[in-house]
Amino acid sequence: MNVAVDAMGGDHSTKIVVKGAVEAASELGIDITLVGNRNIIDRELDLTSSDHVRIHHCEEIVQMDESPSKAIFKKKDASIRVAFDLMKKGAVDAVVSAGNSGAILAAGILISGRMEGVERPAIAGIFPSEKGPVTLIDVGANVDCRPSYLLQFGIMANAFAKSCLGIKNPKIGLLSIGKEGGKGNELVRLARSFFKQSPLNFAGNVEGCDIFTGDVDIIVCDGFVGNVALKLSEGMGDTMVGFLKRELASSFFGKAALVFGHHALEKFKRKLNYEEYGGAPLLGINGVCIICHGASSSRAIKKAVDLSARYVNNRVLDKMAIELNKYKR
Amino acid sequence: MNVAVDAMGGDHSTKIVVKGAVEAASELGIDITLVGNRNIIDRELDLTSSDHVRIHHCEEIVQMDESPSKAIFKKKDASIRVAFDLMKKGAVDAVVSAGNSGAILAAGILISGRMEGVERPAIAGIFPSEKGPVTLIDVGANVDCRPSYLLQFGIMANAFAKSCLGIKNPKIGLLSIGKEGGKGNELVRLARSFFKQSPLNFAGNVEGCDIFTGDVDIIVCDGFVGNVALKLSEGMGDTMVGFLKRELASSFFGKAALVFGHHALEKFKRKLNYEEYGGAPLLGINGVCIICHGASSSRAIKKAVDLSARYVNNRVLDKMAIELNKYKR
Repeated sequence: MNVAVDAMGGDHSTKIVVKGAVEAASELGIDITLVGNRNIIDRELDLTSSDHVRIHHCEEIVQMDESPSKAIFKKKDASIRVAFDLMKKGAVDAVVSAGNSGAILAAGILISGRMEGVERPAIAGIFPSEKGPVTLIDVGANVDCRPSYLLQFGIMANAFAKSCLGIKNPKIGLLSIGKEGGKGNELVRLARSFFKQSPLNFAGNVEGCDIFTGDVDIIVCDGFVGNVALKLSEGMGDTMVGFLKRELASSFFGKAALVFGHHALEKFKRKLNYEEYGGAPLLGINGVCIICHGASSSRAIKKAVDLSARYVNNRVLDKMAIELNKYKR
Repeated sequence: MNVAVDAMGGDHSTKIVVKGAVEAASELGIDITLVGNRNIIDRELDLTSSDHVRIHHCEEIVQMDESPSKAIFKKKDASIRVAFDLMKKGAVDAVVSAGNSGAILAAGILISGRMEGVERPAIAGIFPSEKGPVTLIDVGANVDCRPSYLLQFGIMANAFAKSCLGIKNPKIGLLSIGKEGGKGNELVRLARSFFKQSPLNFAGNVEGCDIFTGDVDIIVCDGFVGNVALKLSEGMGDTMVGFLKRELASSFFGKAALVFGHHALEKFKRKLNYEEYGGAPLLGINGVCIICHGASSSRAIKKAVDLSARYVNNRVLDKMAIELNKYKR
């Protein structure tokens, strides 16, 4: 198992990404290929402690605010692109990047290519809920969708949740604005009939609140709605902890609670966002890729490497291909 | 000032609605007309204590799960419909209801009618943020929108926020999946050019997280996305407090924090949802209507009555008409 980690991606320093990758290598025994500028990586890397880590040098970087498709097309030696090239050649088994997510998506489609029969690859965000992980798909790859895309998102997430999250027969919900069948926009109403006719374990419409109840295991939506939901929930974690701290600080007993609870609050804030599962898998390409949050901690990077290894070991791509084939029309 | 409160609406008992209405009457000096079944209301009402409260009897109720438009069309003596009839006749100045929100919307459009020039009335949800209230429009009235609807939502919310929330020159953002202009779905990309050409204080695209940062005062989106965001944030409050309690209960210091912080946590949970501003104004009809959450507390009902009175006193309808007229094309 060898995972390419994009050492140049992320809002923070290369240091954090390298730290997470090195921890994955030493703690999980996974071989890591750090893709990026050797001079910068070397500064962060104590090579004596990392038998499992090697560097693949490249010159270019896709900036976080760069136009994704242009950057991927022009910058042939950018770390994101080179990581996918290595996977294409079979030199690595998976790619993990906290870089420009649009560029990762573009590189995935351009270099790895779509899986046979897949209309649109999609990004699956994994949320922690009271009853276990909830996979929200799509969280940003496809802003304008057709009903058939949504069905495929469900099929792909189904294979992923079974193989990588250990959920036997995932319950799938369609994100709408009411449980009743007639509710929702045109896209959802049409997609609903596709899901009802499919052999998937379709539980009907769900609402925004269900992302955190865990009543279903997979929630399908278009990438615009999914991205708004993802960013809303991420932002809310920070805001809520801030709110709560101020609320507590305003009373004597609250102040005492803050003293005792500070650590738990911080832990809780981290738990709410991307860190728990490391990153969001890009489903529907001929390869394994986990997209990490730009602000990922080293722990998130380590978790993402772990998830990518599970993806490879559990042969999710093969299983997904079989599932997709069943639904061919 | 006389506000009609739908005594039959809501997930909970008439008791809670009546309690909130009576409190509004006694504490705020607003005359209240409780619309509903006299026998049921009488049981909850201590008339000696409520000079400002009278009952307007009606026989029918729209159930929470009933088909809205059918119910409003058929049940001519339903409390929601009768409340709007009273406003139409000038017997009351505003309507407050925690009933079936689809039915409230249908009654508003059918009985009060759209304001001149308004293509689609919309529901404005008010969120508490770190920097003050943020108005999210539309939160569920219109699931499939045209770009021109979105511009009108912005114009209406602008007049509302200026008049009722005391914001001088509201900053307006368009909900999308990235700050950059090119980002978003087709609807958002088209609407953006409308906003840029308007004299509104348009701040560009915002993201899901901005609902809680308060960097803009108004966020415009279609009713599908807005409803998902509304329900997500409501559900998240409950889930997060549950999470946090379990997190705290798992350690000795955390347990101590829980003992001291229990009250603050509960207060915080309430603050996050609908209760702070009572309800969501229905903008764009010829009348004043605040739609309350089905699970409203009596405090929320009182706050909603207060908001409706401000809406009337500040002549929001007149101001909105002037604003809408300016943008006539």
